[in-house]
Amino acid sequence: MSILIKNGHLVNASENFDADIYVEGEKIIEIGENLVKPGAEVIDASGMLVFPGGVDPHVHLEMPFMGTYSADDYSTGTLAALHGGTTMVIDFILQTQGDSLANALKTWQDKSQGRAYGDYGYHMAVTDYNESTRKEIRQMIEEEGITSFKTFMAYKGALMIDDNQMVGLMTEVKKQGGMVTVHATNGDMIDHLIHKFKKEGKVSPLYHYLSQPEVTEAEASARFGDLAHYTGVPAYIVHMTCEGALNSVRDATKRNQTVLVETCIQYLLLDASLYDKGFESAKWVMSPPLREKKDIEALWAGIDQGLVKVVATDHCPFTWEQKKLGEDDFAKIPNGHPAIEHRMELLFSEGVTTGKITLPKFVEVSSTNAAKLFGMYPKKGCLAIGSDADLVIFDPNEKHTISAKTHHMNTDYSGYEGREVTGKTKTVLLRGKVAIDQGEVKVDKGYGQYVFRNKVDGKL
Amino acid sequence: MSILIKNGHLVNASENFDADIYVEGEKIIEIGENLVKPGAEVIDASGMLVFPGGVDPHVHLEMPFMGTYSADDYSTGTLAALHGGTTMVIDFILQTQGDSLANALKTWQDKSQGRAYGDYGYHMAVTDYNESTRKEIRQMIEEEGITSFKTFMAYKGALMIDDNQMVGLMTEVKKQGGMVTVHATNGDMIDHLIHKFKKEGKVSPLYHYLSQPEVTEAEASARFGDLAHYTGVPAYIVHMTCEGALNSVRDATKRNQTVLVETCIQYLLLDASLYDKGFESAKWVMSPPLREKKDIEALWAGIDQGLVKVVATDHCPFTWEQKKLGEDDFAKIPNGHPAIEHRMELLFSEGVTTGKITLPKFVEVSSTNAAKLFGMYPKKGCLAIGSDADLVIFDPNEKHTISAKTHHMNTDYSGYEGREVTGKTKTVLLRGKVAIDQGEVKVDKGYGQYVFRNKVDGKL
Amino acid sequence: MSILIKNGHLVNASENFDADIYVEGEKIIEIGENLVKPGAEVIDASGMLVFPGGVDPHVHLEMPFMGTYSADDYSTGTLAALHGGTTMVIDFILQTQGDSLANALKTWQDKSQGRAYGDYGYHMAVTDYNESTRKEIRQMIEEEGITSFKTFMAYKGALMIDDNQMVGLMTEVKKQGGMVTVHATNGDMIDHLIHKFKKEGKVSPLYHYLSQPEVTEAEASARFGDLAHYTGVPAYIVHMTCEGALNSVRDATKRNQTVLVETCIQYLLLDASLYDKGFESAKWVMSPPLREKKDIEALWAGIDQGLVKVVATDHCPFTWEQKKLGEDDFAKIPNGHPAIEHRMELLFSEGVTTGKITLPKFVEVSSTNAAKLFGMYPKKGCLAIGSDADLVIFDPNEKHTISAKTHHMNTDYSGYEGREVTGKTKTVLLRGKVAIDQGEVKVDKGYGQYVFRNKVDGKL
Amino acid sequence: MSILIKNGHLVNASENFDADIYVEGEKIIEIGENLVKPGAEVIDASGMLVFPGGVDPHVHLEMPFMGTYSADDYSTGTLAALHGGTTMVIDFILQTQGDSLANALKTWQDKSQGRAYGDYGYHMAVTDYNESTRKEIRQMIEEEGITSFKTFMAYKGALMIDDNQMVGLMTEVKKQGGMVTVHATNGDMIDHLIHKFKKEGKVSPLYHYLSQPEVTEAEASARFGDLAHYTGVPAYIVHMTCEGALNSVRDATKRNQTVLVETCIQYLLLDASLYDKGFESAKWVMSPPLREKKDIEALWAGIDQGLVKVVATDHCPFTWEQKKLGEDDFAKIPNGHPAIEHRMELLFSEGVTTGKITLPKFVEVSSTNAAKLFGMYPKKGCLAIGSDADLVIFDPNEKHTISAKTHHMNTDYSGYEGREVTGKTKTVLLRGKVAIDQGEVKVDKGYGQYVFRNKVDGKL
Repeated sequence: MSILIKNGHLVNASENFDADIYVEGEKIIEIGENLVKPGAEVIDASGMLVFPGGVDPHVHLEMPFMGTYSADDYSTGTLAALHGGTTMVIDFILQTQGDSLANALKTWQDKSQGRAYGDYGYHMAVTDYNESTRKEIRQMIEEEGITSFKTFMAYKGALMIDDNQMVGLMTEVKKQGGMVTVHATNGDMIDHLIHKFKKEGKVSPLYHYLSQPEVTEAEASARFGDLAHYTGVPAYIVHMTCEGALNSVRDATKRNQTVLVETCIQYLLLDASLYDKGFESAKWVMSPPLREKKDIEALWAGIDQGLVKVVATDHCPFTWEQKKLGEDDFAKIPNGHPAIEHRMELLFSEGVTTGKITLPKFVEVSSTNAAKLFGMYPKKGCLAIGSDADLVIFDPNEKHTISAKTHHMNTDYSGYEGREVTGKTKTVLLRGKVAIDQGEVKVDKGYGQYVFRNKVDGKL
Repeated sequence: MSILIKNGHLVNASENFDADIYVEGEKIIEIGENLVKPGAEVIDASGMLVFPGGVDPHVHLEMPFMGTYSADDYSTGTLAALHGGTTMVIDFILQTQGDSLANALKTWQDKSQGRAYGDYGYHMAVTDYNESTRKEIRQMIEEEGITSFKTFMAYKGALMIDDNQMVGLMTEVKKQGGMVTVHATNGDMIDHLIHKFKKEGKVSPLYHYLSQPEVTEAEASARFGDLAHYTGVPAYIVHMTCEGALNSVRDATKRNQTVLVETCIQYLLLDASLYDKGFESAKWVMSPPLREKKDIEALWAGIDQGLVKVVATDHCPFTWEQKKLGEDDFAKIPNGHPAIEHRMELLFSEGVTTGKITLPKFVEVSSTNAAKLFGMYPKKGCLAIGSDADLVIFDPNEKHTISAKTHHMNTDYSGYEGREVTGKTKTVLLRGKVAIDQGEVKVDKGYGQYVFRNKVDGKL
Repeated sequence: MSILIKNGHLVNASENFDADIYVEGEKIIEIGENLVKPGAEVIDASGMLVFPGGVDPHVHLEMPFMGTYSADDYSTGTLAALHGGTTMVIDFILQTQGDSLANALKTWQDKSQGRAYGDYGYHMAVTDYNESTRKEIRQMIEEEGITSFKTFMAYKGALMIDDNQMVGLMTEVKKQGGMVTVHATNGDMIDHLIHKFKKEGKVSPLYHYLSQPEVTEAEASARFGDLAHYTGVPAYIVHMTCEGALNSVRDATKRNQTVLVETCIQYLLLDASLYDKGFESAKWVMSPPLREKKDIEALWAGIDQGLVKVVATDHCPFTWEQKKLGEDDFAKIPNGHPAIEHRMELLFSEGVTTGKITLPKFVEVSSTNAAKLFGMYPKKGCLAIGSDADLVIFDPNEKHTISAKTHHMNTDYSGYEGREVTGKTKTVLLRGKVAIDQGEVKVDKGYGQYVFRNKVDGKL
Repeated sequence: MSILIKNGHLVNASENFDADIYVEGEKIIEIGENLVKPGAEVIDASGMLVFPGGVDPHVHLEMPFMGTYSADDYSTGTLAALHGGTTMVIDFILQTQGDSLANALKTWQDKSQGRAYGDYGYHMAVTDYNESTRKEIRQMIEEEGITSFKTFMAYKGALMIDDNQMVGLMTEVKKQGGMVTVHATNGDMIDHLIHKFKKEGKVSPLYHYLSQPEVTEAEASARFGDLAHYTGVPAYIVHMTCEGALNSVRDATKRNQTVLVETCIQYLLLDASLYDKGFESAKWVMSPPLREKKDIEALWAGIDQGLVKVVATDHCPFTWEQKKLGEDDFAKIPNGHPAIEHRMELLFSEGVTTGKITLPKFVEVSSTNAAKLFGMYPKKGCLAIGSDADLVIFDPNEKHTISAKTHHMNTDYSGYEGREVTGKTKTVLLRGKVAIDQGEVKVDKGYGQYVFRNKVDGKL
């Protein structure tokens, strides 16, 4: 099977230009002017952008959390992603404290096997680092293609490791060629504040926000950077939200360190004024919470400065029924927010359309950097000869409105209900096959493949 | 005329992959697997890298300076550049204080007209900003394609403008869509130290170094960043050499500012121990001078961090005879260093071969970023359909030794004499024509063209 | 003559305690419980504080400036100071560019000779540093007791020296045992903004404020610190107003440098909202201008942190008639503000009464530190055996209201009109003699003496 | 009983001057010239300094630690302190995890009752903060005069509290009017490194040093400052050793915070080259360990800058026999160093004699600031009327040599053996009584009293 996409404006993380692009089998074979490919299916992309399928390195599918499961599984989650132009996601495997990484992997393989529409990989969240876990690191990297290890500095007793374990893990991961990523908030301090607010009878979603002040994230980000500097491990902070945390990374540059930063689309668009809506604010109960306008500015500046490398989602959807578990106690509201479908369009609309970022920068932070940092490049993340033909044909001018009524994620509300967006995903190719076209699904469940990832060193 | 380069490993600022690349006329037309182009000249690039021609945005050709002229003119300079894989340079026009920008432009047009082998552009060095200069800014940008304006915070009485003029210039350039660049050293302080050392009878090249301590550069870089932040102008610091200056840029990130940084190849490789060689040290008398090992580390880290955007040369060659003008007085040694030919190979050898930087990063800092920041993209700086076919075919493994005996610059010594380098420019195409092949020149003097540059905004 | 002050609460820069204090001739002789001194005049200080006479190291008396003279001369100025508990001031001699320091000194000696009520010293403002000035530095220190040298980074053509001169001066002053002080604002940038606003027809006092944005002070403060660090000279920044400048000093601490900071009382109390009053705002036209609430907070924190060492006034009063010189052009409004009389009471009321600072800190920043840093300790600045009996007997509870109707400065308005203050100067002794008692003057014009100051090293 | 000390040079934290000083009962009654006090014992202090008795706020007497007890008890410890001019110490009560503060207090009261030669107070080390501990805070402050609460960020399982507890404690202490102090090192990271080194068979004292790299202290100091800033509690970091930690405090100044810093005398004098002596290095096994020369410079600069407020000892002596517990395992070497006796003389010799600090600064950091910050002022820490007559008569010129043979601490070695010191304690008064004279003890065991301390707010 071969497809020739004609007359589009191609965009990579560095270049953008008008050209045709030709796909054969699963791969990109040729890029050029006026290509003629007899027998190929031709897609006219006049007036359209053509860019690499989005890579969202931060999603949680069917994740057991706070007594329930995130509402999208590999099937609904990766399909919603495809609708929005994201062709690959990296999900998080959670080790059960006291159990092995291998067993956790097995559980996630069961969840994903034959169910995904889009391609996917795994991060391994190490929640219990010990001598036995240590021995599994090499195996995960070499045999399973899992080269990134997520850590939590919060959720004590469930997910959190202490700094002793953190330094141990970093040392081993560095040795084996992987990367350590982190949910960087001071969980102990947050636990204190949650406890305090609840004791005072302050149980609305607003107190979720107030129990995670900026300092909890700034502190933990700095600490993680300190430990990473000592060990030399490639270090990546997920879902950064605020100026304070970003400044910790900026300070680290002075000791010649590069700490890699991911933010999520919601932190670039929404602010904490949304916590002023009574229990409706539960829609935006996520961790870290939304921040202030100054933080939004700092994050956009961070992208421009090259410090923020990746825009992900931390997609972790819950239905309203699930959210209501915390109606009387903010600490029981399942944390998370549906976004996997809208990341690319929101970033385009708020970033490119407004002139905040260039087209290549859009591709860089929505696809290429994640592919590179997580060892999937050049298979993913670029329009390059020999790379997977994961392509998005995108109308930069079409306006549409986000709504739970029309989105494909498994939630009955949207955090962006009624928001008008400029720019729309029209056609999506995944490994050479049209997966989505004009909103219709063209591939079967199970088409999505697991991506074995390479060793990484944190360089771009 | 058409050329098909087969079997190379293509490198862009973000992607690298194996492919053939096809050139027709002056442009890149197609990139793909197993291209077949009947009638085209075929170049086999098996085992070779193919990357965009280097862009050196900081050279001084036939520049009047310190009572003499830099030893390479447009002919010898651009030809030496081509030999080393640099297909385009940006030279500096120097306004004469009291005279107009237009007259200065005229002088430089006369120097360059019909004499260049490689393509070139101009920066306009504004040495006398006043109401009449102000009115010329728009004209330079709109009519002459000169969109970057160089300033000097040193060389009082000859090139320096004061902060009053600086803020004025920044305001106007911002308004008209250009960029302000700067030689950021505190000239007043340097003048004091030069005077002091000479009064003390300290006249050897070592005192050139000692008269420009790190603080002179750190201070001026911070000050320039401050003024740029106030005015909002895109701001670019040329030839940054030291940790102190880099830290000023890092500090500026905290106010959401992006200050663009260029370093030069010599500051990444050589250190101030070279000033301990008596008058022979005059070879490395340049401004700013070489620094310490800690600064070299900081600059490489700056590249990795994405803060250092460009590696240029500040090529400003003088013959040994010229250098001897300062035999009894370091302040009379013409400042400058021949490097235009070796930048790409030295950066490859010290950066890519050692693993300090990736192949795409090499292209990014040696070509793409300069092309983008200075308004020549996508014409220059990338392997993209429709872009100028400026290509370097490069053997990443060939070792060779730098020597004044074999280099093509018009100096009778080399700052790198005897240094072994891994990686060699084999064939260079400029606008679709083979310009250099295996060390032989294939184009005529005058083939090089002036490049009219677009408005810029400092974004990548 | 001897005086015994009984039952007061004595306050020094470190201690405070209840005790009697006994004065004989010009000196403090004894401090203790229940002192009995037959023949001595007894002053009952029950319920009163007794602290060292204030030292205001930043005043301008009868200074030629902007085509007129500051409205208080040595007579009215030092008398107003005494009324407010300030027993010594340091005035600024201004060198005329092109003329010698010695001639400037002569001029100021003529102004002050036999006219002062309170004690006084001189700073020498070096406005034209050259080889001939250099030779006078030692003489000023050794023979004239002038050990501090003021510089201006603003007012080009009248007072400003460039960085070449600055480094030269610092080097010489360091060698001779003095201190360099500075008006740290980027005068060139300010000149640009003044020119720009005037060209745009923006001539009200508001534009005085807008022509000196925070960056002009932050930048110059950082630069001055840089040069001082290089030369090693004791360095003191006068009238610091803002967070940005304070942060430059905080940054300097990281290179183990101590930059000494003075603020003025108005910057601790008033903010820029006062520039919103049409031409009435001319009352607060001073340089630097008033700043924002965040800056006020930063300055109080700076005092608490020990970084702000001195609270002075920059007393430079003009009558309303004089201020009106700039009715059509803010740049012609004589810069300055009457404050010499109110500094101690305002600082007490806003600092001590509110609990922001302790009693010893009040004495430290209003008297002791200035005495130490400027070489007048232990003669001035402390209640110590053998020190000058310069004492203030102060009612910490008496409330009164500031008004031009009742103040003693030679201006027909007050910057603090109607402000209620808690704490009042009741009796003032200068060198053992009651100078002011319940608002009445008890010494004659000419009682005030010139204080020959010692070499200094910037240590406390 | 009354004593008249004649002809000395009196030194306070701000003033120094020649005077006589008269003591009656336990108090200072009078200070003046040529005092005549019939009936008083007269001590001639010609050529001597007279300053307030030293206050060492960081000692460990008879502390249970690492399976043994520190070798000085209240008797030997406070007596050695007196010999060196320290008249008051603050010891640390250690709560046993799981037990109450009240019980811990009881234990320490038993240790100290009737045994001390010098005056003393207690800090309460909270090692197990919970709801029941919370309720004891107020009682400790109001009823027991214990207003400072020590925390450990290291020694997990024995002394460490986590950040949840820390924020809780800070909140309560702030509310009740106390201060939180901290041993700020990242214990988790240290535990990791200790474990790692031991696993690798690296068991010499050198690895004690290497298991506590600078980052462990810099990180924890920053974190503690972050939490303190959030809660607003007066915050004091004990035994700071390094530039990195000091810089965390300097960074905190930018958010208008004052973090109070204590260093110890050994960190100002000794460096890590002492860990290169095989097991003899056990003499300097303390936590944190000695650091580098750059850190020594930073600490002295910190004193000059006013950031380092107190020089203490962390006196925690062990005999060589005890040290040998760790002959085969550095982690079993009892941590600590005998210094209580030498602090004042070493600081004088290395600080004042060399000109690094002034006489008043010497008193400020060795006595006054500790008295003020810990709520003992004006009873302690100053030569003031009505204050305790704790006085040191000190010969600034007498040279002597430190040796275990002559010191009074209960250790059979000295960390300063053979070091020549300039300046010697000659006579010490404690509450009006000669306690030490020319090396002889003049008071009985049990003369030392417990000092009930006042509420504190961190201001000086």
